[in-house]
Amino acid sequence: MSFSAVELIIKKRERGELSTEEIRWLVAGYTQGSVADEQMSAMAMAILLNGMDRREIKDLTMAMIDSGERLDFQGLSAPTADKHSTGGVGDKITLPLAPLVASYGVAVPQLSGRGLGHTGGTLDKLEAIPGWQASLSNTELYSQLAEVGAVICAAGAGLAPADRKLYSLRDVTGTVEAIPLIASSIMSKKIAEGTSALVLDVKVGSGAFMKTLDRATELARTLVQLGQDAGVKTSALLTDMSTPLGLKIGNSLEVEESVEVLQGGGPADVVELTVELAREMLTLVGIDVDPAENLRNGKAYDKWRQMIFAQGGNPDAALPKAQHTHQIVATESGVLSKFDALALGVASWRLGAGRERKEDAVQFGAGIELHAQLGSNVTKGQALMTLHTDTPEKFERAIEIAQTGIEIGSSAPERKLILNRIS
Amino acid sequence: MSFSAVELIIKKRERGELSTEEIRWLVAGYTQGSVADEQMSAMAMAILLNGMDRREIKDLTMAMIDSGERLDFQGLSAPTADKHSTGGVGDKITLPLAPLVASYGVAVPQLSGRGLGHTGGTLDKLEAIPGWQASLSNTELYSQLAEVGAVICAAGAGLAPADRKLYSLRDVTGTVEAIPLIASSIMSKKIAEGTSALVLDVKVGSGAFMKTLDRATELARTLVQLGQDAGVKTSALLTDMSTPLGLKIGNSLEVEESVEVLQGGGPADVVELTVELAREMLTLVGIDVDPAENLRNGKAYDKWRQMIFAQGGNPDAALPKAQHTHQIVATESGVLSKFDALALGVASWRLGAGRERKEDAVQFGAGIELHAQLGSNVTKGQALMTLHTDTPEKFERAIEIAQTGIEIGSSAPERKLILNRIS
Repeated sequence: MSFSAVELIIKKRERGELSTEEIRWLVAGYTQGSVADEQMSAMAMAILLNGMDRREIKDLTMAMIDSGERLDFQGLSAPTADKHSTGGVGDKITLPLAPLVASYGVAVPQLSGRGLGHTGGTLDKLEAIPGWQASLSNTELYSQLAEVGAVICAAGAGLAPADRKLYSLRDVTGTVEAIPLIASSIMSKKIAEGTSALVLDVKVGSGAFMKTLDRATELARTLVQLGQDAGVKTSALLTDMSTPLGLKIGNSLEVEESVEVLQGGGPADVVELTVELAREMLTLVGIDVDPAENLRNGKAYDKWRQMIFAQGGNPDAALPKAQHTHQIVATESGVLSKFDALALGVASWRLGAGRERKEDAVQFGAGIELHAQLGSNVTKGQALMTLHTDTPEKFERAIEIAQTGIEIGSSAPERKLILNRIS
Repeated sequence: MSFSAVELIIKKRERGELSTEEIRWLVAGYTQGSVADEQMSAMAMAILLNGMDRREIKDLTMAMIDSGERLDFQGLSAPTADKHSTGGVGDKITLPLAPLVASYGVAVPQLSGRGLGHTGGTLDKLEAIPGWQASLSNTELYSQLAEVGAVICAAGAGLAPADRKLYSLRDVTGTVEAIPLIASSIMSKKIAEGTSALVLDVKVGSGAFMKTLDRATELARTLVQLGQDAGVKTSALLTDMSTPLGLKIGNSLEVEESVEVLQGGGPADVVELTVELAREMLTLVGIDVDPAENLRNGKAYDKWRQMIFAQGGNPDAALPKAQHTHQIVATESGVLSKFDALALGVASWRLGAGRERKEDAVQFGAGIELHAQLGSNVTKGQALMTLHTDTPEKFERAIEIAQTGIEIGSSAPERKLILNRIS
């Protein structure tokens, strides 16, 4: 069936519903190039401003999946479960979570990406480990899943290529923030990846993509419905991202903290979120345990080591360290009443932990070590954080940005880490 | 000053106002290519859905003017006045109007375009006259204005090139119908052209771009404000386009009817609109006469002949005629209660009077001669219209379309030609 791109744009512009056939035609045409970038960006803006209903979002997602290949893990003896986070500052949870869940006999195919912006990327973090390789063929992915159970690797270009193309377009046309487009982008890859269960960690707050609980809830509901409509057991946690997660931000630094958690230590917030997300994933595949157990007894750490080895990494090798450090100290005594995720995330990014443009390299050692958290009592002159970078000319700007995120007062807002659960 | 295209798109997407500097940067960047088509189309959709205020529309128009050259007619001894119609079926008014107004000593620089769609283009009509040339250099335009007073010619590529580029983009991205973009597109060329007075004929009804009086009124008010903000004396008439203007639709056919009017005859509606638009133009430049006079006494016709001669045309030459004709007759007796502008315009277009694609040629002889008008009493078997074409295989489809526009009943809606005046 053939349609006119202009007529479909006008239909959505006038708040109409696009039919299943129209959406399929549009996505296929865009993937092949018969629907032009300038047409798709006008459509994306119309979708952003006028919305899509549940059926349209499902059709869009399925059309993006159909633009590429699908993986199939049904031959595995283990159930599969995956997690997706919308991204936050210091959010290294995937690193301890995948081996933790796998340590209970679940296959975790965690196809991940690189970072662009202040929130960092899972692959960038793991690439700090000497020898570790992000790229696996589908056969390698399948056999690592069968043998080790946990895989964190790069999502291949074959999954939902329409999404890849559309995401690049949205990035330059001010149309990133459309919930139907965000939801179909996330879920097309996860559904194509073939997981049977999926837990979404939808972040809320200054350091997150969704700044308000309302917007985050809307996104979470859309994602959960979409997963369920596609036959994937899906639930979501809404979690706080007003202040960084844990005490370390940056690639090597976040691997270090993940290993602390896998060895039974680590900051309480990182442990709590790892355990709660693991509980969600395990529950979805019918396993009722206390996931904290395998952090304490070393089984999750053993699985981590196997996972890193399997992809060429040496879990015992020293991680790259930055050559220069700078401390920021408390200018007065009191309670740390603001320790803002966005400011600290951007400061870490500017120090070299993230990239400005897709083609840039990241500095593995760059980032920020926090010596306090929101609500900590601090004394004038005490170190609040240590900045790390190989390029010390970046300190000035990073310090300036970090300082906009720090306030010392007489009390701090109470931090509730897990704000809601949606299923 | 430099901005980010994405940030400006997001600003408008979130219903913000773009500053003068931001609009200038955007239009200059788009003209030069540093703002991409896909960015401008997302912006156009955001403008369509979220609007622009009066100051933004003025800034957009001035930025489009600044993308190209401006003409200057201040050295002429005569005042200048121009007319722009938003386009309608059988709307040949420019042809008698320009010489009529010029016959009162006003310089009329009528820079026009070709047709794409069902409403026809002024240049296509005049090109039916053997020898007539649409393209004049700026020097030729100026000297013809000084010597003859009336010029109808092609708008050069130097006027508002940003508008030309943006219009092509809007055409393929479902963003044509945005009033701020329509208004700035029309007015940028008219202001750059340098006229001191401008009358807008904003058409309303099935055959017009604006289907409702409300939308047409909004457009007319925007256009008039914009002209006044730019120092051009501007007024607008809202005129009916629910049924064709006059009895002839098509290129040669409309030249014929224009000459009838210039010779003191012609259908009453064409005469009325020509006279009323002439009165508006003359009033704006301070001339208080009854323009019907120079239609009756032949002065307007003399001016027409001078104008056609000046551009190489022979006003006495026979006009191209189509090789094939077909009559549509009344299927019953009664009152012509519907004679729809859109249906008859599209039928004429399909017969070859208009073009499908920009690069197509038009058939000068193709079109429709009407033998009745809305409200006429007709008798079963009486000819309602004669279709003309060089390509008789087009009759079947054209007849089918024309017939959807004809209804015979017991009474007809009263037709008010001039619906409102805005100044």
